Amino acid sequence: MKKIINGSDKVVEEMLQGMVKAHPEFIKRVENSNVLIRKDSPVKGKVALISGGGSGHEPSHGGFVGLGMLDGAVAGEVFTSPTPEEVYKGIKAVNGGKGVLLIIKNYTGDVMNFEMAAEMAEMEGIKVEKVVVNDDVAMEDSTYTVGRRGIAGTVLVHKITGAAAERGLDLLEVKRVAEKAIENTRSMGMSLTPCVVPAAGKPSFEIGEDEMEIGLGIHGEPGTHKEKIKTANKITTILLDKIIKDMKLKNKEVAVLVNGLGGTPLMELYIVNREVHRILEDQGIKVYKTIVGNYMTSLEMAGISISLLELDEELKGFLDDRAYTPAFRQI
Amino acid sequence: MKKIINGSDKVVEEMLQGMVKAHPEFIKRVENSNVLIRKDSPVKGKVALISGGGSGHEPSHGGFVGLGMLDGAVAGEVFTSPTPEEVYKGIKAVNGGKGVLLIIKNYTGDVMNFEMAAEMAEMEGIKVEKVVVNDDVAMEDSTYTVGRRGIAGTVLVHKITGAAAERGLDLLEVKRVAEKAIENTRSMGMSLTPCVVPAAGKPSFEIGEDEMEIGLGIHGEPGTHKEKIKTANKITTILLDKIIKDMKLKNKEVAVLVNGLGGTPLMELYIVNREVHRILEDQGIKVYKTIVGNYMTSLEMAGISISLLELDEELKGFLDDRAYTPAFRQI
Repeated sequence: MKKIINGSDKVVEEMLQGMVKAHPEFIKRVENSNVLIRKDSPVKGKVALISGGGSGHEPSHGGFVGLGMLDGAVAGEVFTSPTPEEVYKGIKAVNGGKGVLLIIKNYTGDVMNFEMAAEMAEMEGIKVEKVVVNDDVAMEDSTYTVGRRGIAGTVLVHKITGAAAERGLDLLEVKRVAEKAIENTRSMGMSLTPCVVPAAGKPSFEIGEDEMEIGLGIHGEPGTHKEKIKTANKITTILLDKIIKDMKLKNKEVAVLVNGLGGTPLMELYIVNREVHRILEDQGIKVYKTIVGNYMTSLEMAGISISLLELDEELKGFLDDRAYTPAFRQI
Repeated sequence: MKKIINGSDKVVEEMLQGMVKAHPEFIKRVENSNVLIRKDSPVKGKVALISGGGSGHEPSHGGFVGLGMLDGAVAGEVFTSPTPEEVYKGIKAVNGGKGVLLIIKNYTGDVMNFEMAAEMAEMEGIKVEKVVVNDDVAMEDSTYTVGRRGIAGTVLVHKITGAAAERGLDLLEVKRVAEKAIENTRSMGMSLTPCVVPAAGKPSFEIGEDEMEIGLGIHGEPGTHKEKIKTANKITTILLDKIIKDMKLKNKEVAVLVNGLGGTPLMELYIVNREVHRILEDQGIKVYKTIVGNYMTSLEMAGISISLLELDEELKGFLDDRAYTPAFRQI
């Protein structure tokens, strides 16, 4: 295992410390917790958004805490759900009186622990709602989920929902917008390599020198199948075909996220983006906005995912709103 | 070689196409060239900045084309200097009448080709000045340089100099600011893995499963020596000690860049950043601003570099100025 760390039991704690040192103008840490919140939390008169999950997906989710996106991010151990107690600390810290929306990636542990935290907060009179992101079209059920998994499309849901909350919409309206963003988002990924969870010390799956894994999850769990490595254009076609088939686009206008899994050079993401645009143009689908980079990673895994978000006028407005966070900035 | 590409001879062309598709609000491409320029080029009444070099360092340099940083970036083949003709096309495209400053990383090929391009442009009456970034304290001369190499600190020089140009300073003043930023910037890197240049198809150097390479360059060229992998904290100490010794800090206030080489998880960069802050605090050196992420990469190499920029009031002002580019945004 080749990693720049001080010990597998310290990675999350030390990372959180390093994040706060890097971005003091954006985030602060809730005392005695693994929760990062907006520096100006709790923001009065605004619905607060909380997301989170296992660590190892950086910049998700702490990197999206800030104006126009999340109010708080709860970090579990690597690829491990945060405890209900931790999520509850986050809810309490960001609640500004208009209620809290939890944005949960669909993994059984996350859903259970975020729900328990919501119940704890509600017993104290805090209004809490939740939405579950399930954008991954690779498979219906998986090792860690009932139903589809939540992967990189979650970042688009953060952006859209964060804008709705920043505009001052009330809790049920913000939830409606989040659900619409989720309904309109689809993703799929592939990888060339596994990743190594520090505490495990060995690769998450075996793969041949000439093979790629299609439809893998973001915790290093295997995908639907292995096949011989293909060209960037063929890989893009495989992923995008499955996404588009599933979407049944009505508006023919989308936002694109070409996401790197941590170990993929930006060069390759741009090469994929080129073909994404070519295919969409070919099918008469207009691209309103494109985002390319490492947004939802799996440690050092080499691979990509592609996400599409179907847009209408309302969603375009939220997408265009200002956001200013460590990892996503737009004016 | 595991890469998501369509062929080793197409990577630069297809990447540039994908970049323009991703960032049409920031950049456009100069026809029949590998030059990316600001969408509003040439900007009248402003000194124009050009940088560039071999590809494979993305987001450097095309990702820094935009308001408050570069006017143009010239991309060579992977780890290969762009031709004088290409740089010349860039100079012509961005010249807004107040002259053009070339920001060159110190590699023999880059310096030679950018200088030849400057001469070509001067023959047409365009005022051109140049500065050479040589921030790498690992070694004095290297495989590809006379004197020190230019590495990730170049991004800090782009930021500072871009702000000076955006404020409307004249060419010699902008050059003075650039030279001051260069004088005040030091960097050093290390890696856990080599990288694979697509056209070569094999790793750039050999390294053992328990070894790291200290002081390597950003073209996969070997560093000063190999040693056993150490903890993140010890690695940080090794790099930072050498940087600080070389700087002879007067002002005891710095900007920090913890840079990933392409294949390093953000988690590890934050862990390093934590120790950077601890060491600087311990030595009474104040951190004014911190930047953490993949800014000057070497394809998929796993490794990091640390850069410090010594600040005074003038440089702080330029550092704080607004910048808005594909890969660096600050309001």
